Amino acid sequence: MTRLERLSRCSSRGDGVTRLPFTAQHRQALEILGCWMEQAGLDVTLDAAGTLIGRREGTKTSRTLLLGSHQDSVPQGGRYDGILGVVLPLIALEDLKDHPLPYAIELLAFADEEGVRFPTALMGPRALAGTFDQNLLDVRDSDGVTLSEAMSSFELKPDDIPTLKRASKDLLGYIETHIEQGPVLQHKDVPIGIVSAICGIERWQVTIFGRAAHAGTTPMDLRHDALAAAAEVVLEVERFALQTDGLVGVVGHLDVVPNAVNAVPGEVRLQVELRSGDDPIRVSAGRFIATQIDEITTRRGLESTAERTYAQDAVVCDNSLSKTLANTAETVGCIAPRIVSGATHDASAMATLTHIAMLFVRCKDGISHNPDESITIEDAETAARVLREILRDFDGY
Amino acid sequence: MTRLERLSRCSSRGDGVTRLPFTAQHRQALEILGCWMEQAGLDVTLDAAGTLIGRREGTKTSRTLLLGSHQDSVPQGGRYDGILGVVLPLIALEDLKDHPLPYAIELLAFADEEGVRFPTALMGPRALAGTFDQNLLDVRDSDGVTLSEAMSSFELKPDDIPTLKRASKDLLGYIETHIEQGPVLQHKDVPIGIVSAICGIERWQVTIFGRAAHAGTTPMDLRHDALAAAAEVVLEVERFALQTDGLVGVVGHLDVVPNAVNAVPGEVRLQVELRSGDDPIRVSAGRFIATQIDEITTRRGLESTAERTYAQDAVVCDNSLSKTLANTAETVGCIAPRIVSGATHDASAMATLTHIAMLFVRCKDGISHNPDESITIEDAETAARVLREILRDFDGY
Repeated sequence: MTRLERLSRCSSRGDGVTRLPFTAQHRQALEILGCWMEQAGLDVTLDAAGTLIGRREGTKTSRTLLLGSHQDSVPQGGRYDGILGVVLPLIALEDLKDHPLPYAIELLAFADEEGVRFPTALMGPRALAGTFDQNLLDVRDSDGVTLSEAMSSFELKPDDIPTLKRASKDLLGYIETHIEQGPVLQHKDVPIGIVSAICGIERWQVTIFGRAAHAGTTPMDLRHDALAAAAEVVLEVERFALQTDGLVGVVGHLDVVPNAVNAVPGEVRLQVELRSGDDPIRVSAGRFIATQIDEITTRRGLESTAERTYAQDAVVCDNSLSKTLANTAETVGCIAPRIVSGATHDASAMATLTHIAMLFVRCKDGISHNPDESITIEDAETAARVLREILRDFDGY
Repeated sequence: MTRLERLSRCSSRGDGVTRLPFTAQHRQALEILGCWMEQAGLDVTLDAAGTLIGRREGTKTSRTLLLGSHQDSVPQGGRYDGILGVVLPLIALEDLKDHPLPYAIELLAFADEEGVRFPTALMGPRALAGTFDQNLLDVRDSDGVTLSEAMSSFELKPDDIPTLKRASKDLLGYIETHIEQGPVLQHKDVPIGIVSAICGIERWQVTIFGRAAHAGTTPMDLRHDALAAAAEVVLEVERFALQTDGLVGVVGHLDVVPNAVNAVPGEVRLQVELRSGDDPIRVSAGRFIATQIDEITTRRGLESTAERTYAQDAVVCDNSLSKTLANTAETVGCIAPRIVSGATHDASAMATLTHIAMLFVRCKDGISHNPDESITIEDAETAARVLREILRDFDGY
């Protein structure tokens, strides 16, 4: 917790932690992490994508188990999101400094997972997986600085990113530790959980066309109220997600036109988001909701359009690596439930390169991306012990 | 229709009719109306509140039947709203120019019903009823001109408004002709209707407090979705108004916070409007809806506030005068249904002074306050005939 507190001070001014990639705060965090990595007996390098890498060789094979997460934060974020997944394995590796291991290990601190400075994200793992789009180097931040310029000022050589691509055969997997950023573990009253899958996401843009009318002079039975139809859609999304295992869904965005107290709403634009760790569940839910929107609006004599504007498939965690994590948790006296990650992580992009597994740490009230982000020292301790034990006993090389 | 077309050209530039009170366009309209009133044998005066008055005396009594409506329009309004209620009685009076009548008649063209230039309205009828608040003379239009200054430039003496108050005993009633501004007559396929009451209005400001959360990481059963609760409120308002005779209700305004596609809505602010020609129906509906809001949000584990921010009582039209209108309509071969006016009219303010009745004329698709406002010449003819007949045969003096 002392280390996390120290790193939280690598932040721009304002509440909470603001540590954007390729800034002075990023540099400051890397100096500290690099120093600690060296103390843990790791060879430290910074790759062309800005990923800080601490490596130790194995006694029997150069095949490598990867650990890590991202160093960056959202503006005014918390002190655990991302960086906890660097600090906890670091502590585990410190404990194992003098303990020879047959396989190699790399601890990774990725530069940019959040994608808040530049409209890109997951650059570090994508570089390793060979899926980074070099065209993104030309995107600009809000000050007009390109990603390429920002990286060059950070003494990186972004043109070398394609050389970072790893070969899957050299790797043993990637284990990411992260705060849950949700309330499930707290609700289940357990310190840690094992991620079964990182959910897939789809978003629908829906427009309902009614007829704006004077709310005094138009009788109820002659109205074409777009908001009343939208209300049915909101409740149908909620009802269907509640009754479908493994699915969450919400109408998070809704705008009314003309939005006047004395006018029957003439048009509503809303967005439906569906997430599931199981793609077929999500895809069929999307189709069903679209059918229901059509049914609701047609029944009311209204028109509507519903378009799927975004879709991202789920990433399933490796069953064997996840089982090893769960078994190790049991050896430290902890039943770690399998849970689906509702948010995206560096592991999402690592999955095209190697087997992935994720260890979630309980966070208070599920609050994240907020200065109030909070975990307990006991839960962090439990997670660190699981990491230490799994590294010591890992035999999957 | 030729006359209405001519008056529609007393307008500021732009689409439709824009004739605001105490402007050059207002003056132009009064010149024309004054001329036509004189041609109909009326004595023309302009009172201190800017009401153009055309009067003819009775052969038996000086007690007076009032007719009229407003000359002003909303910005880019139609050519019938208000002014139709001046032109049609004018034509009826022209027809009766050489026909002696036992009672006196005044045709009134009020200056400002819409209240769009100054934040006041119904000034003319309030002056006659003695309910005009002289403090309003200090309010300013968007150019910083006070109402008092605007009236003085119009050669009016606003300080004399209190002297305009009429005595109820001198009056026989007030009949206002107006386009319906709603779709009921078109839906019933009849040219005219008799207003039974001008509806009362109440508005509720409702805030629903849920808990904003990550739409991926928060399980369905741990959410406190303010929009889902609001959707139930929207549908409950609609359901209750649909099943309650004489009540209309709507949620016309609704804002979601934070209104992001990937966030469970944390707060919703909405406004409920209820209207009825029957105050007890409206008041008990408001109480019921407030109870339902509390029930819905409590059941979902949310908090809410609901405050009645506006209330205006209904104005009931005079039964005897309305019956006379209906009987007269029958003599010209027209069954005029009783309908409730959902909008406010000059008659609302006249009701504290004398008996009121209103004759509605069908308007196309219920469209008003819009350049597309439209009526047929046949419907206007029917209304003018009803007015002529009622004036010729009126025996309620």
